[in-house]
Amino acid sequence: MLSVSEAVTTLLEQGERLAGVETVELIDASGRTMATDLVAPIDVPPADNSAMDGYAFRFSEWPGAGRGIPLSQRITAGAVPLPLEPGSAARIFTGAEVPPGADTVVMQENCEETAGEVRILKRPDSGANIRRQGQDLRTGQKVLPGGRRLRAQDLGLAASLGIARIQAYRRLTVAVMSTGNELRNPGETLQPGQIYNSNRYIMKAQLEAWGFSVVDLGVARDDPGAVREMMVQGAEQADVVMTSGGVSVGEEDHVKDVVESLGSVDLWRIAIRPGKPFAFGQVCSRPFIGLPGNPVSVFVTLLVIARPFLLHCQGANDTSLAAVRQRALFEKKAGAREDYLRVRMTEKGLELFPNQSSGVLFSTTWGDGMVRQRPGEEIHSGSMVEYLPYAIFN
Amino acid sequence: MLSVSEAVTTLLEQGERLAGVETVELIDASGRTMATDLVAPIDVPPADNSAMDGYAFRFSEWPGAGRGIPLSQRITAGAVPLPLEPGSAARIFTGAEVPPGADTVVMQENCEETAGEVRILKRPDSGANIRRQGQDLRTGQKVLPGGRRLRAQDLGLAASLGIARIQAYRRLTVAVMSTGNELRNPGETLQPGQIYNSNRYIMKAQLEAWGFSVVDLGVARDDPGAVREMMVQGAEQADVVMTSGGVSVGEEDHVKDVVESLGSVDLWRIAIRPGKPFAFGQVCSRPFIGLPGNPVSVFVTLLVIARPFLLHCQGANDTSLAAVRQRALFEKKAGAREDYLRVRMTEKGLELFPNQSSGVLFSTTWGDGMVRQRPGEEIHSGSMVEYLPYAIFN
Repeated sequence: MLSVSEAVTTLLEQGERLAGVETVELIDASGRTMATDLVAPIDVPPADNSAMDGYAFRFSEWPGAGRGIPLSQRITAGAVPLPLEPGSAARIFTGAEVPPGADTVVMQENCEETAGEVRILKRPDSGANIRRQGQDLRTGQKVLPGGRRLRAQDLGLAASLGIARIQAYRRLTVAVMSTGNELRNPGETLQPGQIYNSNRYIMKAQLEAWGFSVVDLGVARDDPGAVREMMVQGAEQADVVMTSGGVSVGEEDHVKDVVESLGSVDLWRIAIRPGKPFAFGQVCSRPFIGLPGNPVSVFVTLLVIARPFLLHCQGANDTSLAAVRQRALFEKKAGAREDYLRVRMTEKGLELFPNQSSGVLFSTTWGDGMVRQRPGEEIHSGSMVEYLPYAIFN
Repeated sequence: MLSVSEAVTTLLEQGERLAGVETVELIDASGRTMATDLVAPIDVPPADNSAMDGYAFRFSEWPGAGRGIPLSQRITAGAVPLPLEPGSAARIFTGAEVPPGADTVVMQENCEETAGEVRILKRPDSGANIRRQGQDLRTGQKVLPGGRRLRAQDLGLAASLGIARIQAYRRLTVAVMSTGNELRNPGETLQPGQIYNSNRYIMKAQLEAWGFSVVDLGVARDDPGAVREMMVQGAEQADVVMTSGGVSVGEEDHVKDVVESLGSVDLWRIAIRPGKPFAFGQVCSRPFIGLPGNPVSVFVTLLVIARPFLLHCQGANDTSLAAVRQRALFEKKAGAREDYLRVRMTEKGLELFPNQSSGVLFSTTWGDGMVRQRPGEEIHSGSMVEYLPYAIFN
């Protein structure tokens, strides 16, 4: 059996950037993956500016506390300052550019202004209250790495550098299909023997939350011809083909044979629970991911196994997850596989959903994350365990 | 000074559901806030079904290990089973409905099938390998609370219950504007005294990531008439009006006076760093949020103060955040305010970005979260501190 980390590593090795590069307006680039390093084209701040509402003067001309200095100009944010006249001070506001010649700003709370002059009541430090040109970022500095999935603050940083558009990887397109004669769509009436298809909803919403485009192929009947037709259609329209269900080696499971006829497939024995069976291969030269049929297994393998692979194919440079250690309020025997336990965080620690069966999707909606129980790890009430909030999988 | 939690509590008390309710197709409902409780309309599973590929029989008819039982039917997933003939067994596949009369399934690995009969090599437990009707969810059970922001797994659960559309709150609309003569848009050429507007990008991307619609008003000049005109426009088009900058009481700050003339405003003294000044009020009967001007302060107050208020106005039932405790690899003296330190998680613990100035937006893109340093809390290298990954603010 492959360990989970071996499975992920193997997938990352086989994955390649599948999507081309395109120019994207920065204002629309949230969630997109940057294709190139972002290097600062200017200094930030672009010039010395005032950190306060106050008065700018030349420190070497300090006249003594309470002595008047004539005011020679008034500089608001956005205005172009004149060189500071010798022996004078400038009224200045937060964010305004410090005039050439001035080297110190004193905050207005320490001043009195009357009839064209200012008296500074308390001597400031030389150079005080000025944000220096290039203090935050220097021209030529690498500020965001290629492969970064852009968050709000990343867009803000790029904007502060004057960047209006970036090179981003085209959105990865994933075709998703489910298999099974028993599956009905919500809204339809269930006949005996039928159940509603939940995997379609999990896959589509989760893939879209990661920023991928989804081609929603629907449900294929348990019939090799139907599965084949849908799979070819998926490979024509998408970068990656993903299925749920039908991937076992049972008499009624046709996905494996069909994928083999269109490319290649391996049934992986991954030491994960829930999560069996998981298949990986190629369909018409596209990567193929075969998720299990049980909805909790779909959810867990999507987050733990498929996510890093897909993000890697999208061009992301970092797909790792930082688990945090939290106190368990439950007991769980050690097992041979890596177990993803659905839990809920409370003030006192993590509570376990009582039914961890892979069929019980309610276990994933009841709480806010999972505990990763390593093979052989015993969990006692009070143990510090690895907690993975669902939110960090985004 | 208000503590951060007092500020948030006060805002939540003043906030109300601002958006009406509409019907949304479940497949499009990811990230939407559900307006009503979801109650299970059916049992899940809807009938007893097989957890394995195997053979279903009546346990009371157990013939003894290795004795043949005639096969009377073959039941695939999705098929309608006939009542089980007395003295017979049914071939059955994973997910298929168990025939009336059968009460036990034995996995195929423990059987031999030949010429129309099956020999069970090992006696199973009575009732084994059957997922019982209603085992996961019972008709009438409340499964998702009104106010839930729907995640992929929540959609999956609703789908498994046959729900095709839900009642959701209309998306909250937030109008955003920045103020300042010094602000230029990325792509334009900077003149002396000018800087690029980053706040617009932070606000728009973050608000959209939370699922809100954004009315992007642009930049208003530091002029009361211009600020007023833009603000009225925002109040006409959105549920909430949000500004960055211009909210102080300086000579060149006009936002406060304009908001007062159109409604009411309070400048809040919140014990947060970065994050001053923060204003809250009403513009033309819409809630008004005045964020600071410095980009890091915008980012922090947006996440810490504005987020719970806006999500509450959107109808969300839970806006709390669960911080996790992590080891600090840095020293930080105690302060009087609640400090949101930008940090990076490493294998050994949390590293502090060296420049925590509110002007240095790079501090927010360098790492993956913040440490909440409570007023009076000393941090030493090795201290366990409250860590808030950016991802959990989603």
